[in-house]
Amino acid sequence: MRGIGASDGYGIGKVVVKKELSVPKKAYIEDVEAEIQKIENAFIAAEKDLESEYEQKVETLGKEHGEIFKAHIAMLQDPELKKTICDLVEKEKVTATYSTQMAIDQFVAVFQSMDNEYFRERALDIKDIGVRILKKLLNISDSGFEGEGLVIVAKDLTPSDTAKIDKKQIEGFITAIGGSTSHSAIIARTLGVPAIMGVSGIVEAVKDGDIIIVDGFTGDVFINPTKELLHEYELKKVEYEAKKKELMIYKEQPSVTKDGHHIEIGANIASPDDVEPALENGAEGVGLFRSEFIFMNRTEAPNETEQYIAYKAVLEGMGKRPVVIRTLDAGGDKKIPYLNIPEEMNPFLGYRAIRYCLVETDLFKVQLRALMRASVFGNLKIMFPMISSVEEIRNSKKILDEVKSELDAEGIAYDPNVEVGIMIEIPAAAVISDVLAKEVDFFSIGTNDLIQYTTAVDRMNENIKALYTPYHPAVLRLVHTTIKNGNAGGIWVGMCGSVAGNPLIFPILIAMGLHEFSMSPGQILKSRKIASLYTLEYLNEVLAHVLSLGTAEEVETYLKATFTH
Amino acid sequence: MRGIGASDGYGIGKVVVKKELSVPKKAYIEDVEAEIQKIENAFIAAEKDLESEYEQKVETLGKEHGEIFKAHIAMLQDPELKKTICDLVEKEKVTATYSTQMAIDQFVAVFQSMDNEYFRERALDIKDIGVRILKKLLNISDSGFEGEGLVIVAKDLTPSDTAKIDKKQIEGFITAIGGSTSHSAIIARTLGVPAIMGVSGIVEAVKDGDIIIVDGFTGDVFINPTKELLHEYELKKVEYEAKKKELMIYKEQPSVTKDGHHIEIGANIASPDDVEPALENGAEGVGLFRSEFIFMNRTEAPNETEQYIAYKAVLEGMGKRPVVIRTLDAGGDKKIPYLNIPEEMNPFLGYRAIRYCLVETDLFKVQLRALMRASVFGNLKIMFPMISSVEEIRNSKKILDEVKSELDAEGIAYDPNVEVGIMIEIPAAAVISDVLAKEVDFFSIGTNDLIQYTTAVDRMNENIKALYTPYHPAVLRLVHTTIKNGNAGGIWVGMCGSVAGNPLIFPILIAMGLHEFSMSPGQILKSRKIASLYTLEYLNEVLAHVLSLGTAEEVETYLKATFTH
Repeated sequence: MRGIGASDGYGIGKVVVKKELSVPKKAYIEDVEAEIQKIENAFIAAEKDLESEYEQKVETLGKEHGEIFKAHIAMLQDPELKKTICDLVEKEKVTATYSTQMAIDQFVAVFQSMDNEYFRERALDIKDIGVRILKKLLNISDSGFEGEGLVIVAKDLTPSDTAKIDKKQIEGFITAIGGSTSHSAIIARTLGVPAIMGVSGIVEAVKDGDIIIVDGFTGDVFINPTKELLHEYELKKVEYEAKKKELMIYKEQPSVTKDGHHIEIGANIASPDDVEPALENGAEGVGLFRSEFIFMNRTEAPNETEQYIAYKAVLEGMGKRPVVIRTLDAGGDKKIPYLNIPEEMNPFLGYRAIRYCLVETDLFKVQLRALMRASVFGNLKIMFPMISSVEEIRNSKKILDEVKSELDAEGIAYDPNVEVGIMIEIPAAAVISDVLAKEVDFFSIGTNDLIQYTTAVDRMNENIKALYTPYHPAVLRLVHTTIKNGNAGGIWVGMCGSVAGNPLIFPILIAMGLHEFSMSPGQILKSRKIASLYTLEYLNEVLAHVLSLGTAEEVETYLKATFTH
Repeated sequence: MRGIGASDGYGIGKVVVKKELSVPKKAYIEDVEAEIQKIENAFIAAEKDLESEYEQKVETLGKEHGEIFKAHIAMLQDPELKKTICDLVEKEKVTATYSTQMAIDQFVAVFQSMDNEYFRERALDIKDIGVRILKKLLNISDSGFEGEGLVIVAKDLTPSDTAKIDKKQIEGFITAIGGSTSHSAIIARTLGVPAIMGVSGIVEAVKDGDIIIVDGFTGDVFINPTKELLHEYELKKVEYEAKKKELMIYKEQPSVTKDGHHIEIGANIASPDDVEPALENGAEGVGLFRSEFIFMNRTEAPNETEQYIAYKAVLEGMGKRPVVIRTLDAGGDKKIPYLNIPEEMNPFLGYRAIRYCLVETDLFKVQLRALMRASVFGNLKIMFPMISSVEEIRNSKKILDEVKSELDAEGIAYDPNVEVGIMIEIPAAAVISDVLAKEVDFFSIGTNDLIQYTTAVDRMNENIKALYTPYHPAVLRLVHTTIKNGNAGGIWVGMCGSVAGNPLIFPILIAMGLHEFSMSPGQILKSRKIASLYTLEYLNEVLAHVLSLGTAEEVETYLKATFTH
């Protein structure tokens, strides 16, 4: 089978299929006793989980954060719920899962129909409890994937799945949907784990324990391969690891072109745990810390202390190196349920990132306070996402100023010289980058969104994926304009989108005058090597030719023929 | 109550609420006999409708187009369906509507579970039949709105609703959702009917026969107003009509600035019926015929003959005046079910317009054949929507050339000099408009989409509507770039988005060098008057100042202070 190679490398391991909770279908049983026993066991297990989650929360965050768990335990202990489920099993002779779903639906309907806000909100709690019971009945564990040498196969991996993954256990990811810019792909590259996306039918084609080969370069998947093929790939893997080791000579070297033009290559990361792979791969800084990842896989927003701890860990981990932390970029394809962003017809063109934060200012302030408090532990730069106008910058900076005044009043220390910058990822921002350069200390170009909006192509849409290309002359022109305007305005310009690590485009970005590059840790050393191969003069010539071309195909063909590194 | 004034004018009339088919809720009845009689009647009425639709189709399009109706009649006559519904009523004592829904759901589930493509497709037919029966049970007519002096109140108006509307009967539209760029709003402006969008709660607040005032300027709605208010609005309406009449002196005049600089002002239309209002309002041409509207409100695509008749009617109606017909712009917010465009996460960034036509080339060729055949009856120009690259233009023109060769071979006449142009509505197209100008005969700037993609704002999204603005400097720069590049490339540049008729932006577009303006018929005479008020020299000064401003707010404030027309 074949998909889209989304993270380089070779993986050989045992399949573990991610179990999905789907709506139970109606099915009949004969042994009523056994079914009722299952329900009893599920209730006991669910209650045990809730108790331990309660204790954990109270211990780390204090008593008030445990209330919700206590409430859920009380609801679970309500005899009416269990009785309704068991009655359905007895009378209708249906499965425990189906009767649970029916009973939960009934309870939800009752709560929702009440003319009382409090009770209507309880409908959400009862749904939550239903999910817990069903997971116990279906033996779906929340604890992640256990074992070693695993290849995780899933329809899709959510951020909460990937958060549970221990890199050391994992040989590869394979998903049925998604492409090379999906969040699963980004995570795979950060972890340095080979990954293939968009392999339709893969979930049905494998079972737990199958031996599987993941070729992250070609996108090839081999299920239960022959001994010969297995041997071939074991060799490939060894060779690839050796090559990666060779690149380690670039780890402690600066990033310079053949003729000594300096640039800076940093890492994109999503959690304090990623500092280690970043430094192992010679990152000169963090060009993008995606702070939204510390908001995911939770039931409520992290409080100031939790955020402070995370930011401090990243800053301390990176020492004196610059660390660009992007404020919450929620919405779009990054859904965070408790933020209550409504369902949207076009989430990519919707209420997200800075647009949300400038409305939910309490939440925004908590993040900015945590950032400023952490600023004394390293070289912090704050970056606002999805900026399209001067007003949004001014409003964001005003809130940051308020936070500083509060900290001053409270006598809390922070670094007063923290640089403030913006993502350039909306065409409007690129087009008026001369104006925006006067308002901030730096730009960082986000190419995934910039390509998406400039060409009006949803990068996840399979039907038009051929139209999503970083080689489009309009994209390159907007990137070029942004860099020129930033440099002319006396601010530094970086790029943290996946184009920064594209080996064909990376060299011409140097010629465009880009100063800072941030990419998946695994791409850093290769890029540093590429930079060292060419003179700036030569790259200027290549760039001039690229800018004379009118189509993406011409650009790509020319770059492939020109750069053979 | 208040909403967004989406089409100018005052309407005073009787409310007619659009009835929506919603999923029937479970409800109990006592009189089983009466309920069963309702079902019998609904079946008879539905069959009668199907018979007459069958005959109509066969008469106009031939026997093979009637097959589907025959199949539906046969399914409706299947005694099993009616029996299942009646049994539910008898046994469960539920309403005819609820039991119909249950029975249809059962049948659909059975068909869908079959391991056979043919039967699975029948599930769609049975759903269709269910809708027919339910409509009969609920007394929801498909025949449109009857009576005169009506104000239509609806949650939303679909293109198929507006297609059924006879302008002469209608005093106004009020919808609960949507904004001034929704399709209902566009239709209202074309018809010259006052309209207010986004009045949440309106459907619940009125009943059929209420007297209602529609103030299309302010967005105010008055339900059962006092006599005084009614009188006040009757006066306002008379004054407004008089003012509109005054503008009629501009009807036969050319469109020129005070110092004699010529431009061209045409109409945006959506059907041959719109030719009359266009000409009544002094249109010098049709700058945009939205051909997708002849694809809507149907169960299958119009065939070549049907399309040919529509295009011919528009071309003949407009005489020697230029008529720009845009090829099928399906997808996005314009859903056409039978085209089978899959559900998308971000339809505005999806598989639509030319992207769809370049894949479904058979359908595209039928349209191009119909257009070329009609070209001998007037001054046709063909326009491709959603172009983002040179390749798409070349591929579209290649298909057009194939169509010409076919017509040559068949000896069918067409105008060999039909101009071919593109919409500039994707930022990428504006950015590389210098390159694209070499490939086509004209550009027409589509501002709704251009604003949407440039600023990454879904224009229908209530949460971020403040960010959707034509005054954004980036939008104005991209428009300016496109016009300059088109003019430098020796082709004419027009605009068919709603910004063309914006009285504050229209004058500065003249200064930018825009040649052709296409707008709602009702805006033409006012715009012609505005053009006549200023010299090009003065407008150049205004433009220079506008281009020096960095924010949308500054631009809007300055234009409001400068233009007091």
